[in-house]
Formats: sequence, C-alpha cells, structure tokens
Amino acid sequence: MVNVAILGFGTVGSGVAEVLTGHERSIARKADGLVKLKYILDVRDFPNSPFAPLFVKDFSVIESDPDVDIVVETIGGATVALDFTRRALEAGKSVVTSNKELVATHGYELTQLAREKGVCYLFEASVGGGIPIIRPLSQCLAANEILEIYGILNGTTNYILTRMIRAGLSFEQALKEAQEKGYAERDPSADVEGHDACRKICILSAIAFGRHIYPDQVPTEGITKVTLADVDYADGAGKKIKLLGRAMKMEDGKICAYVAPHLVDCSHPLAGVEDVFNGISVRGDAIGDVMFYGRGAGKLPTASAVVADVMDIARNLGHRKALCWAPGGPDAACGTDGLASRWYIRAEAGADSLRAALGEVKLLARSGAPAGEAACLTESELTQGQLREKLAGLETLSVIRVLN
Amino acid sequence: MVNVAILGFGTVGSGVAEVLTGHERSIARKADGLVKLKYILDVRDFPNSPFAPLFVKDFSVIESDPDVDIVVETIGGATVALDFTRRALEAGKSVVTSNKELVATHGYELTQLAREKGVCYLFEASVGGGIPIIRPLSQCLAANEILEIYGILNGTTNYILTRMIRAGLSFEQALKEAQEKGYAERDPSADVEGHDACRKICILSAIAFGRHIYPDQVPTEGITKVTLADVDYADGAGKKIKLLGRAMKMEDGKICAYVAPHLVDCSHPLAGVEDVFNGISVRGDAIGDVMFYGRGAGKLPTASAVVADVMDIARNLGHRKALCWAPGGPDAACGTDGLASRWYIRAEAGADSLRAALGEVKLLARSGAPAGEAACLTESELTQGQLREKLAGLETLSVIRVLN
Repeated sequence: MVNVAILGFGTVGSGVAEVLTGHERSIARKADGLVKLKYILDVRDFPNSPFAPLFVKDFSVIESDPDVDIVVETIGGATVALDFTRRALEAGKSVVTSNKELVATHGYELTQLAREKGVCYLFEASVGGGIPIIRPLSQCLAANEILEIYGILNGTTNYILTRMIRAGLSFEQALKEAQEKGYAERDPSADVEGHDACRKICILSAIAFGRHIYPDQVPTEGITKVTLADVDYADGAGKKIKLLGRAMKMEDGKICAYVAPHLVDCSHPLAGVEDVFNGISVRGDAIGDVMFYGRGAGKLPTASAVVADVMDIARNLGHRKALCWAPGGPDAACGTDGLASRWYIRAEAGADSLRAALGEVKLLARSGAPAGEAACLTESELTQGQLREKLAGLETLSVIRVLN
Repeated sequence: MVNVAILGFGTVGSGVAEVLTGHERSIARKADGLVKLKYILDVRDFPNSPFAPLFVKDFSVIESDPDVDIVVETIGGATVALDFTRRALEAGKSVVTSNKELVATHGYELTQLAREKGVCYLFEASVGGGIPIIRPLSQCLAANEILEIYGILNGTTNYILTRMIRAGLSFEQALKEAQEKGYAERDPSADVEGHDACRKICILSAIAFGRHIYPDQVPTEGITKVTLADVDYADGAGKKIKLLGRAMKMEDGKICAYVAPHLVDCSHPLAGVEDVFNGISVRGDAIGDVMFYGRGAGKLPTASAVVADVMDIARNLGHRKALCWAPGGPDAACGTDGLASRWYIRAEAGADSLRAALGEVKLLARSGAPAGEAACLTESELTQGQLREKLAGLETLSVIRVLN
C-alpha cells in the first residue's frame, strides 16, 4: 500500500482527493496496489468535508510519518510550497505537483534533491493541465533531438482571444466575460500579461533542451495590447491572433524562449485550438511535428494528471527514475534578438509610407478602418532590431510576430 | 551497457539502426548508459551497408546470446515475427515492435509471456507511428476511466480522402497518386479496406479498456465506396469525410469497436487532420477530450517511437513494469448493432421519398447532381437496424455515419 498526503485543499487539491478516492479500485489495479489518501494539509477547516478526518494543520505530522510515500503539493506559489517540497524530499518522500511557478523557478534544485534522495519530483499537471505533455516529451520523444516547442499554453487568454475573434468583443469585454465564467481570476495579470505561459515554456524548455531556463530570461508579452482592429486585419489575411509560448535551440546551442502574441495561419493546427483549450506542438528531428490538444486547466483534468504521476510513482516505488536536467545560467538563454520572422504592422500612416519603410509588404484591409491607418505583413523576415530601424519614422500602433 | 538486436532491415528496421547509432550519445545520456546495436537479422545481404558486420541470418545467434537485452522486431506479419518474438521473450529478452498485426492478434499472449518472464513487450510505434499514444494512454491518462477513443489511424486513406476533398480527384485517381508518392502500397487493400485501422483500434481498445479485442470482432469498412458526390454533399453540410477507428465502452461493459468512414463537422479538431497525418482523440471522465496529432507513419517517425521504447527499457532494465490486459473472448465486444448515430444518405430518389422514409432530415445539395438523386442527413439518431428498416424501399447509393 502507498500512502499519499495532499498539501492544500483548493481546486486542484480537492480534485485530487476526489479522483484518488472515487477511482480507488481502478487505481489500485493499475498501480499494482492500494493508493490511500492519508492526510490533507490545509490552514482552513473543512468540518463538513467527507475527508474531514484526514485534515491536519501541521506539516511536520506528514513529514515525520514514515508511512507517507508521496506528497501532492497543490498549494501554489514558491514560498510555503517550496519549503514543504524541500522538506518532503529531504524526508525521502516523492513529491507530485501542479505548481508551475515552483517548477519554473526551483525545478532544477528540486529535481536534483529528489535524485539525491532516490525519490521523484513529478509535475505532469504543471503544463497543459490534463494534457499529457511532460511524459511524452521526456519519454516518447526521447529518441528525437527536439528542435522547437511552441503552443497555446494559457486557456484564459485563448478564451479571451477566441471571443474577440468570434464575437467581436473588445479585450476588456472578453476579459470581463472570462471572469464571470470563472476562467479568469479577479486579478488577471498572471494570465493576460503572459506570466503563466512564461512559466510553462520554462518547464517545457528544461525537458526539451536539458537546461533550466528561468522566467526572467524569457521575454514575455501578453495580450493586453491586442485590439479588435488587429483581430480584423489578421482575419483579412486568413490568420488568427494567438498567444504563444515558444522555445527553440539556436545554432550556438542557446535556447531562445519567449511569450508573445502571434498571427497564426488558419491552416495551422494551432489556429483551430479555441476557447479554454491548449495546444502544444513539438518539432523533433525524427518525428517532425506532433501536437497535443485538450483542456489546459480545470479541477478534474488537472487532478487526473496529478493522480497519473502518483500512480506512476506508486507502481514503480523506489525504481522510478527521476526527471532531471542541467542547471541554468546566464549563458543558457539568448533572448529574441537574433530571431527573425515576418511581422504584422499597424500604423498611423499611409500604405505608401509602410511600403517606403518596409519594402515589399502585403497590405491588409478591414472594414471601418479610419483614414490614415494602414496595416501590412512584411514579406521578408526581420529581427526585432532590423524592424525597429525600419519603423523608426512611423507612428506604429501594433507590432506582432507572424508564426512562420 | 544494453545490447540491442534488430529483426528485419526494412524501412522501420533500418530507421531504428539509423536513430540508435546517429543519436548514440544523447541516447546514452538519457538512458543512463550506452545502448549498443549488436545484431541485425535479415535474410537478405547488405554488403555495402555501414552496418554490414552486424548482420546475421540465424535467429538462434541472437536468441542464445545472453548479452542481448532487447530485441526490436520490425519484420511485420504474424508468422515468423510471432515465432521470434515468443522465443526472444522466452529467452528473457524484452521485445519492442512496430508490428500492429502481431500486437492486435497476439498481444494478450505476448504481454502475458513478457510478464511471466519479467521482461517487457512494448509497441508504442504500432499505433500512430511516432505520435505518442500508447504511453500517454496507459500512463498519463491512467487516473481516468476512458469512455471513448477514436481517430484517424491510417495516413494512406487520409491522404486519399484529403486529395478527393481538396483537388476533386476520384478515389481511383487519388489512390494512384498516393501510390506514386509512396504513401500507398501496390496492393493497397490493407489500407483502403480499413484493416490497418482495425488493427490499431484493437490495440488502443486493449490499453484503454483493459481487454483484448480481436480484429475479427471489429466491423470494418474502408473508403473504396466513398465517391466525389459524397465528398461534395458533405462539404455542403460543412463536413468532411474521414475514415475513423472508434471504440467505446457500452453500458453493459462490452466494447463497441469499429472502423468506418464518417462525416466529421469542420469545427471538430479531427477535420483539420489532413494528408498523411493521424489524429487520435481520447475522452476520459476526468480529462474530457484530448487529441494527439502528427505523422502516423514514415521511417524516422516510426523508428523514433521504437527507440523511445528501447530507451525506456534500457533506463529501467529489470524494473520496467509490463503493459498487460485481460484476455479477450466472444463477450468482450458487441459489434455496432446498438450504436445509434445520425446518418448521411444518398439515394436515387426524390427529396420527398427521403423525407417520407426518414422523417425529419436535412436535405443537402451539390452542383451537378443528376436529376433523381437526393442526399440528406437524418435529424434523429438511429441504429443500423432502424435505418435499414426505414430505407427498405429506397435505392440507396451511399450510407455513412455522422460523428456526433
């Protein structure tokens, strides 16, 4: 029998408790033995919960109980969660988490600690909610050299963009709707400013390229500046605006990782990923492109990914090899300065000025465009620096990368 | 160090040799040790191959070499491949294969044998080529009860249908083109009659639902009867014709698995899976729908999936738990008699006769339809039996399920 303790009885933690107990028999069968929920740690009281007898308030109860094999950390953040995760690993317990912030900021240290202690630190649920991506990337695609990984990593912003595209809502209106539906938090900045996607691309980079990339090494731009005018121009070009996290290995071996809105061609599989769904594309030297698609968040999808990690550890107790990668550092990432791409430009300017500045362009149209506004796609691929130089004399309103 | 022998130096086998040797260093790093190709078994001679010194013609050399840990079977078929696989497992060697026919027909027996011998029988490459699906389904989604699994499992037929839809080619023209491009074999029947998809849905059913389903329990219909008229009518209804393998658990616990063309709505992610790509959708009770997308065949994609299995075994030598499921039997599957769905009907009849026969229908139109032809989608969901009864007096030309 394997005993589990859950830290934090919020949305994901309570979902884990529900899945672990609701599927007890099938989990026992697949994990080759009973997986029992022994403790739930939370500062709050839940006297009416069916799990009431399991609650504890003191982490040391869990830490010092030798029967606890696996600790599920669903507290979030990188303070208390970091302390408890370290202590659990130190005590020889495996830890499973959905906490992307902690993995993105302390994943290297924690996987190393797990390795030293002969236990596991697993985090399938930290990226893409219930979509299998960490294990496919680290195991199924292991024979590939990963060239690039990119995708729609945040469901909230994808919902907002989808509503802007489909219903013609402004960013503010779509955000309000997302908040009313519970898809966006009251303080939506982690989502709409791109920080959530940034943490996820850090985690994916570590698995794909084998070195830790820290969030502050990843240029991050959200969707707050995307306007309906941009959505309309993109539509006229057969493209959709999507917030992408991207990471690729450059020729010098450094990782170029960033988060930014992109114009994505409607024929690209990611263009069809709508609402709160996520889609993650991986390009490997042998496999070519593969894509993973599904609900990127939500109580039960995320909980099911956490429980799958728990089952993997339970099934291979003491034998499950730890995930690990090399440490990060200033030389690991290179920013986006060297990354050329086509660009979408909207400016207070005439078409002639755009052409004069940018050379050959594809001019775009939208109904209701005010006089004196023009928009285009550049024909040539330019780095940010090259683009900035060319646009120097223009009053630009929007500048967005085009996914090639 | 782990030693590997490859059986069969065809497309996939030679790809495996290429990936194993070409990525030797990164494989050694990820597999925690060197993975060395020791033998290649083939009846043919390859004097100019860089692997020439490794060739043997007698399987007993491999069978009796205690240094061989993993045998890669890429012979195909279920005769010699079955004999060698059994003997390799009996000799205590793990076996990795891309051979869908063998897994679909003897997977239960072979996984049991592997389990008894404490070794593995892995087959990630048997479904979806390089697309990770077996491991995600058996591990990442393990906390879910799988409700349904369905998808585009055969790249050749998807290419043919895509060319019919996009370029207006007839089935015969599109097949010829696929053969010229090397996507279809000279005898294309395994693909176009649906047998290849049938084997794959058998394998997916075993993993998803835990019982062996045999190909002869799976009603299988290919795409040879799909006409351009059907493609056009479907287009008018905002749908595409796709060959799907489907399996779902019915209320009585039996598995309903079948292969047939379907009308798929253009808004469904599978509608965007074109050319030789595969797309596999899984519906779980916790995760909802997830989809896996990528190249379903090809030398290097398939080889990369085989090598990932090899690395998994190498990394966990002696500890990797075997995949296994319960035996099949007549009571495991139930056919499609009980499966109601909407239907597309094309008939030599007037619209009025269709309405009279089927009640409320959505009539479809296409340009150039001959007088006396009509087509529709039924509004209500009907079983095959119910439909047959209603269509009794009509001269039907095409009858295709609509994916709900």
